[in-house]
Amino acid sequence: MFQSFDVTSTPQFGRARVEALRARFDGLGIDAFLVPRADEYQGEYVPASAERLSWLTGFTGSAGIAFIGRNEAVVFVDGRYTTQLVSQVDGEVFSGGDLVNAPPHVWLKTHAAPGLRVGIDPRLHTGADVRRLEKALEKSGGTLVILDENPVDAIWDDRPAEPCEPIAVQPEHIAGKPAAEKIATIAEGLAEEKCSAVLLSDPSSVAWAFNIRGNDVPHTPHPLARAIIHADGRAELFCDGEKIKGAAMDHLSALATLFPPDTLSKRLAAIAVDSGRILVDSGSASYFLTQAIRDAGGEAVEGSDPAQLPRACKNAAELNGSRAAHLQDGAAMCAFLHWLDTSEPGDVTEIAAAKALEAARARVGERMQNALKDVSFETISGAGPDAAIIHYRVTTATDRPLKAGEMYLVDSGAQYVNGTTDITRTVAIGEVPEEQKTFFTLVLKGMIAISLARFPKGTRGCDLDPLARIALWKAGADYGHGTGHGVGAYLSVHEGPQRISRLSTQELLPGMILSNEPGYYRPGAFGIRIENLIVVREEVEIAGGDRPMLGFETITFCPIDKRLIVTDLLTREELQWIDAYHAEVREKLMPFIDEMAVRAWLDAATTPFSVHS
Amino acid sequence: MFQSFDVTSTPQFGRARVEALRARFDGLGIDAFLVPRADEYQGEYVPASAERLSWLTGFTGSAGIAFIGRNEAVVFVDGRYTTQLVSQVDGEVFSGGDLVNAPPHVWLKTHAAPGLRVGIDPRLHTGADVRRLEKALEKSGGTLVILDENPVDAIWDDRPAEPCEPIAVQPEHIAGKPAAEKIATIAEGLAEEKCSAVLLSDPSSVAWAFNIRGNDVPHTPHPLARAIIHADGRAELFCDGEKIKGAAMDHLSALATLFPPDTLSKRLAAIAVDSGRILVDSGSASYFLTQAIRDAGGEAVEGSDPAQLPRACKNAAELNGSRAAHLQDGAAMCAFLHWLDTSEPGDVTEIAAAKALEAARARVGERMQNALKDVSFETISGAGPDAAIIHYRVTTATDRPLKAGEMYLVDSGAQYVNGTTDITRTVAIGEVPEEQKTFFTLVLKGMIAISLARFPKGTRGCDLDPLARIALWKAGADYGHGTGHGVGAYLSVHEGPQRISRLSTQELLPGMILSNEPGYYRPGAFGIRIENLIVVREEVEIAGGDRPMLGFETITFCPIDKRLIVTDLLTREELQWIDAYHAEVREKLMPFIDEMAVRAWLDAATTPFSVHS
Repeated sequence: MFQSFDVTSTPQFGRARVEALRARFDGLGIDAFLVPRADEYQGEYVPASAERLSWLTGFTGSAGIAFIGRNEAVVFVDGRYTTQLVSQVDGEVFSGGDLVNAPPHVWLKTHAAPGLRVGIDPRLHTGADVRRLEKALEKSGGTLVILDENPVDAIWDDRPAEPCEPIAVQPEHIAGKPAAEKIATIAEGLAEEKCSAVLLSDPSSVAWAFNIRGNDVPHTPHPLARAIIHADGRAELFCDGEKIKGAAMDHLSALATLFPPDTLSKRLAAIAVDSGRILVDSGSASYFLTQAIRDAGGEAVEGSDPAQLPRACKNAAELNGSRAAHLQDGAAMCAFLHWLDTSEPGDVTEIAAAKALEAARARVGERMQNALKDVSFETISGAGPDAAIIHYRVTTATDRPLKAGEMYLVDSGAQYVNGTTDITRTVAIGEVPEEQKTFFTLVLKGMIAISLARFPKGTRGCDLDPLARIALWKAGADYGHGTGHGVGAYLSVHEGPQRISRLSTQELLPGMILSNEPGYYRPGAFGIRIENLIVVREEVEIAGGDRPMLGFETITFCPIDKRLIVTDLLTREELQWIDAYHAEVREKLMPFIDEMAVRAWLDAATTPFSVHS
Repeated sequence: MFQSFDVTSTPQFGRARVEALRARFDGLGIDAFLVPRADEYQGEYVPASAERLSWLTGFTGSAGIAFIGRNEAVVFVDGRYTTQLVSQVDGEVFSGGDLVNAPPHVWLKTHAAPGLRVGIDPRLHTGADVRRLEKALEKSGGTLVILDENPVDAIWDDRPAEPCEPIAVQPEHIAGKPAAEKIATIAEGLAEEKCSAVLLSDPSSVAWAFNIRGNDVPHTPHPLARAIIHADGRAELFCDGEKIKGAAMDHLSALATLFPPDTLSKRLAAIAVDSGRILVDSGSASYFLTQAIRDAGGEAVEGSDPAQLPRACKNAAELNGSRAAHLQDGAAMCAFLHWLDTSEPGDVTEIAAAKALEAARARVGERMQNALKDVSFETISGAGPDAAIIHYRVTTATDRPLKAGEMYLVDSGAQYVNGTTDITRTVAIGEVPEEQKTFFTLVLKGMIAISLARFPKGTRGCDLDPLARIALWKAGADYGHGTGHGVGAYLSVHEGPQRISRLSTQELLPGMILSNEPGYYRPGAFGIRIENLIVVREEVEIAGGDRPMLGFETITFCPIDKRLIVTDLLTREELQWIDAYHAEVREKLMPFIDEMAVRAWLDAATTPFSVHS
């Protein structure tokens, strides 16, 4: 299993650990210390060795930051985690803060005592973080103290070793382009920014540019590594040499000079002295690294990662790989949904279902000789009211059976060498109340609206987001998350810069993979989400039209539960979409399914509503 | 008639006038002079005395700016006016510039000769204009020269006198709120900005705040006036005293101290010396006025006009007035459309139609004792290919008959004391080709999508814009303008800040009046636009929903040409909307129509497509 359902929080240690941390404050000349849920790579997943926030406080959520003062300790989390926080930390030691509306750089403006000295580990914060914190402390005459070492590490006796998993070369027929070519393109682009080099601080950008993959953090198959690419085309890779063996050594030593990770800041300083301007990604470069450039007299030009857009716009080989990965994944989903449908309501729990799904993926991967490398994130497996918790993570403490009369929501994904998947299906367990079917159908209307959308070049993610909501809005409802996020090609399941959301002004470009996942959540009652992945493509010329349009190719194939669809609420166009989609699901998946019972299930699950559609 | 269809351009004078202007350059110490189509009030319509661009160059469009250098003269216009420019200016004297992509402050970066001294009249440019121009000249070592007098005025012998039309008091039962109360609210709001006073530089804000109307410029019934409101509630009005007589004098002298307009900069300077911070509207305050504050040592805080949002969110009396004005206007539209339908195709020209429509409005206004005060903009009256010109203004030079087999587009509006209207209808003249009916129906689908939209609080204009386009996008088509603009209450027909457009991040708030006017244009062939005005309102709670929603009330009532609707392309919901709308049109307008033939026409034009809808 690539995921655990255990309760891993350790609230009982919070008090002693915070006291031990505070005991070091005087020696460091600080009154407080900030502990973000971040490592020096600023990624979504961090290795066990960087889970400082969880070790110190007990809080295991994927986003948060603790402010540990001499007399108070506040853990700032977002709305997803307010309930979880209460159960995971010692309430006598920690209070909760609002990560969205009053994160530390806002909270400190009104809460910092005069002259407060707040320490940070500069490897765990970006330059923008530091500027915001400094500004927040200005008013009260406080100081942000940049520490050389992280004081949590000094008291963390049983801290796990840093990960050191072997790097694999991503084959060129899957990557679609030689690494040397990608590196050369990035190098050429530096002329426009008038920079002599760029720091690739996001490990996913390094993985993409160098055609390598790794296993250092859960669920995202990039190795923890960073790189410098020079305008003249030379490349330097900063990565533990122990990860690079055999074929990876041949591949990488032909592309770059290899350095140990802890020499990066010195190399940046040396380059800054030599040649001045270095481009850094403002979203992922740590203050520690940008400051190394500035301290050496160079200019750290904060811009956007030049690998980000080319990585987002997948090439033909990457798209073909993703399509294949999705068919395999769809076959596993069918095996799972068939098993679920033939189980007795009440016999299956949320954890059992999540395990069965992962097992189905592993089984199909073995059969097709394209192994399940990992799940792409921890499966959200929620029945009844649990489905209303948008980022629900089932544990042994919350596990419950899937009961008749409820909907069950399962949002999951897989990592295969040829692609990353992310799919949500909400299915009926027994006969579900009409109201829930109505909302299911309204969510489906939104999902179809995105699937069918055509749009001119220049359209941004924010322009499409309302199309997925208007049917719900008309019913007096909405959902509290974006409609879609970018997805990588055997990389992060949450990839920028493409998104379909109210705030995304990124133009949608051909080759971008996105999720299409509207939902509806009735707290304490039920939750619905339907998610396919889609690819931006140039549409064939539309007859009678006068300009080219972009549109989406759906690459996720898996039946949508017809028992939950109120066909009266669908337009002819929507009914035609669902029938055509199901016909394609059947045609595409059947060759990958050998079990007769699953084939029969798929056949039934994809029969059209209308023979004329 | 409130509009003329004459060709008013005078290209033949351009050469001599530009030479006369250049002859003054040495005396003023400049090498070039900028002539914007603007007066010192920065409004959409300017009085004849401020039509300097038209007088100098011949170009009569509503937006543009001329750069007159020693050896070249460039008139910058937007895409609407590129063709018109060619026919209106002397091509041997003037060349055309791109107002959108390369306006003067961009163009000068690459075109300014080293050390170029560019003169401007600081009354005709905002502070932001000046900053942009100064920055553009920086690179080439040029200078922006702020002139005391406008050199065009010095050579404009027959310059018309400045307008001086009497001010009328807007009755409180129509305005809905006493002026004293509006002024007090603005004054109170200044505390938040820590300002001691605000300059109301937009005459529409002055008209709204003081409950006055005027007739100084065409089509927008505000008097040219500005005001200062102090944080303590005192008000000062800057306006030619000749405009204020009788009841207006009683009304205004109780509200404010009255000053001649040319004393405004001195008063601002005096207030700046006394009390420092003065709020100015960055969109409408001239550089001349903000600089007067700064020169006196005060701070001109560039923000947004505090009257703008309260003016945009109409109160109950203003909405009731607007509703009544729209019923009267709808009756006039019916009389006109009936006349058009009973005329022989080919017998009516674009000008004749525009005149007939204005006459119908005047006639209904007389009968209902609510006079047509003005048209709210120059009528767009275009048949066949002329309808494809988005801002077409018919003149005696372009006039053509409405021929059988064509569509005719008429976009027009009226000013009544109780409201401002703006309506577009596209109608069939004889039997129209199927392709045109298809596009008419797609445009209608967009217009219905906005009419039926529900949306949560916080939704912005940009969020709704795509709903009006998606049907066209799916057909490979789009339109090159926003979906809707704000509309005033017996004020400007183009009112901010509310808009439905890709770039509008203004939240939609209850009481805002907007247009809903998608279109489609096939250059050289045909053009379609359908426009109703709509009001943002809080919807009654939607059964089964879980949160309040906003929506739109349609206030324009006039049949939509059923002969152009392909019902097969409409969803059930859309068909129901059109039938319900037509039922409401019939019910609401019939009482205002006495002529039997028009009543019969209205009855036929509004029969439902479906008896079951």
